[in-house]
Amino acid sequence: MGVVTPQIAHFEAPLSLSCGQSLANYCLAYETYGTLNTERSNAILICHALSGNHHIAGTYADDPRQIGWWDNMVGPGKPVDTNRFYVIGVNNLGGCHGSTGPSSINPSTDRPWGAAFPFVTVQDWVHAQAGLADHLGIERFAAVMGGSLGAMQAMQWSLSYPDRLAHALVIAAAPKLSTQNIGFNEVARQAIVTDPDFYGGDFYAHSVIPRRGLRLARMLGHITYLSDDAMREKFGRELLSGQHRFSLEVEFEIESYLRYQGDKFSERFDANTYLIMTKALDYFDPAAEIGGGDLSRALSHAKASFLVASFTSDWRFSPARSREIVKALLDNRLPVSYAEIDAPQGHDAFLMDHPDYQQLVAAYLNRVAEECA
Amino acid sequence: MGVVTPQIAHFEAPLSLSCGQSLANYCLAYETYGTLNTERSNAILICHALSGNHHIAGTYADDPRQIGWWDNMVGPGKPVDTNRFYVIGVNNLGGCHGSTGPSSINPSTDRPWGAAFPFVTVQDWVHAQAGLADHLGIERFAAVMGGSLGAMQAMQWSLSYPDRLAHALVIAAAPKLSTQNIGFNEVARQAIVTDPDFYGGDFYAHSVIPRRGLRLARMLGHITYLSDDAMREKFGRELLSGQHRFSLEVEFEIESYLRYQGDKFSERFDANTYLIMTKALDYFDPAAEIGGGDLSRALSHAKASFLVASFTSDWRFSPARSREIVKALLDNRLPVSYAEIDAPQGHDAFLMDHPDYQQLVAAYLNRVAEECA
Repeated sequence: MGVVTPQIAHFEAPLSLSCGQSLANYCLAYETYGTLNTERSNAILICHALSGNHHIAGTYADDPRQIGWWDNMVGPGKPVDTNRFYVIGVNNLGGCHGSTGPSSINPSTDRPWGAAFPFVTVQDWVHAQAGLADHLGIERFAAVMGGSLGAMQAMQWSLSYPDRLAHALVIAAAPKLSTQNIGFNEVARQAIVTDPDFYGGDFYAHSVIPRRGLRLARMLGHITYLSDDAMREKFGRELLSGQHRFSLEVEFEIESYLRYQGDKFSERFDANTYLIMTKALDYFDPAAEIGGGDLSRALSHAKASFLVASFTSDWRFSPARSREIVKALLDNRLPVSYAEIDAPQGHDAFLMDHPDYQQLVAAYLNRVAEECA
Repeated sequence: MGVVTPQIAHFEAPLSLSCGQSLANYCLAYETYGTLNTERSNAILICHALSGNHHIAGTYADDPRQIGWWDNMVGPGKPVDTNRFYVIGVNNLGGCHGSTGPSSINPSTDRPWGAAFPFVTVQDWVHAQAGLADHLGIERFAAVMGGSLGAMQAMQWSLSYPDRLAHALVIAAAPKLSTQNIGFNEVARQAIVTDPDFYGGDFYAHSVIPRRGLRLARMLGHITYLSDDAMREKFGRELLSGQHRFSLEVEFEIESYLRYQGDKFSERFDANTYLIMTKALDYFDPAAEIGGGDLSRALSHAKASFLVASFTSDWRFSPARSREIVKALLDNRLPVSYAEIDAPQGHDAFLMDHPDYQQLVAAYLNRVAEECA
């Protein structure tokens, strides 16, 4: 994709949020790749997951090592072909990479929002993204797509704005979190909020960050992103020094990996954003919101065509969860293609190179490109 | 079982440990139930798991609510029938319920051992338990049994002292931890050691306990002890107040349950003991220790008869892990009965009432009782 430049869109109209509060004004950081055609019909919105952002593909001029998180999927000749599509990545509201969030300055106090930043939902994100679409002159997306929490946003688009997208690509998703999923999120949140450096969310004023909590949250997250088999393949029970140390020093390679991932994450991610993202995940439940508990009834609002894809080894959002979505779409006679991809990596497979997976997305979007040409 | 009284056995001979250190003297807290027959042939040793102790059955005179952790399994007329067997429960070395451990006074400093207490292994526990058997005049156990980490001790008994037990009951076990198992343990340990109140393990001197870390460790543990289905059945996505709070207050019932379990545990368990127990789990690997990487070769040292039992919904130590043990026993033509019990509760099923499970243990031990009568 080459060098890309992030942009900021400012919004002055207040945004009403699910929680009852509203944001008087806000901004969204975004990036675009490819060219919008004259019919404005070739736009694809890509929504990010828990720790992602708007930097999907390419690198930055001032930091060539910072490659976008879906660079293997998005670019010229890639499955999301930027020679044919105008692709948009956006940092969600509440994020920590340029969009208005808890680490932004609250105009009413001139200090970071911190704990005062409202909890936002997947619906709120989709409303804000629709504002960005207006700003960019896009009435209707050729497709909205994402993996994991990003896929939930694609689903929500089909419900909140059924006439504004032709296709939804829902990858490695679930129609709502399981009790176990919520449990893991809660442990991660408690790790953060009980870190003495959290200061009730207002750690910015103390010039510290709740590093310990974020580190634990990320270590735990990583275990759920990988399959048991993938961890065994990659790390096994290998010892760094070849023998037991009988101490608390790192000794198994998996320990080293998790500590490293935790340390790295705690340096780059905002703790309040992490809390907001996990809460948005917990809250997502279109069946309860608009279906009276019935997913099929909820999805009766949708008009898009769907590609649903899952990965065999994903135990966070297993294929069975994707099949719930497929069933509800079929109940509504909506066009849906479903693929269960045989991949060993677990939930993270949606981010990885996998020929079947990439060919699937390429083939599906090839049809979409022909439709909007 | 009625009221029982814990006892303490003191050992003055030094105990050499796997780590290379030795303990000059130590004590073990234990309880016994039933009567040792004149042939001394009806003794059963029950080994505890991660957070268990020697209080297996009955209650205490001064605390009638403190019921033993396997009271549904052990007692007159119960599967481990104390009318027929002399049953021993022992708190492992490194524990925090009466046996010598990190919260005990280190005689060389007159202060709690803390971080100076050595990391002990399953082998070390078994050696110490053999000392207790000597102390009680038991040359050979009718059976050694346990669930989870307790089952690993039963396996180790068959390898360390093949002539000192007739039967090993290995319930909800694995021949070694998986990479994922170690990963979860490591997150729990990091939660404890990064708690500012841990003080490198010497928190006793500061009159604090690393409550936050222990609480997180236990919350995480609980998720792995329950099956996804059991959590859904028990808690679902139910909200305490019936609606979303858009705050960090507890809102889903599963959050309330995990916080409660974490809080309770952090009040009653020693943080250093928790670290020692998880390390002992990580280290356990008889195939690597004495089999050159081959479990069948390791188990060629065993002479006992085995009952191996697993639970269908246990994802911490799945039935497939138990079948590895069974295969290795069969490779050695050792007598083994194997049962995969259809139970929805997950790993914790080994502690719960389940007719098939209790009948299985009762039937197996009935045969054992006839042998040693």
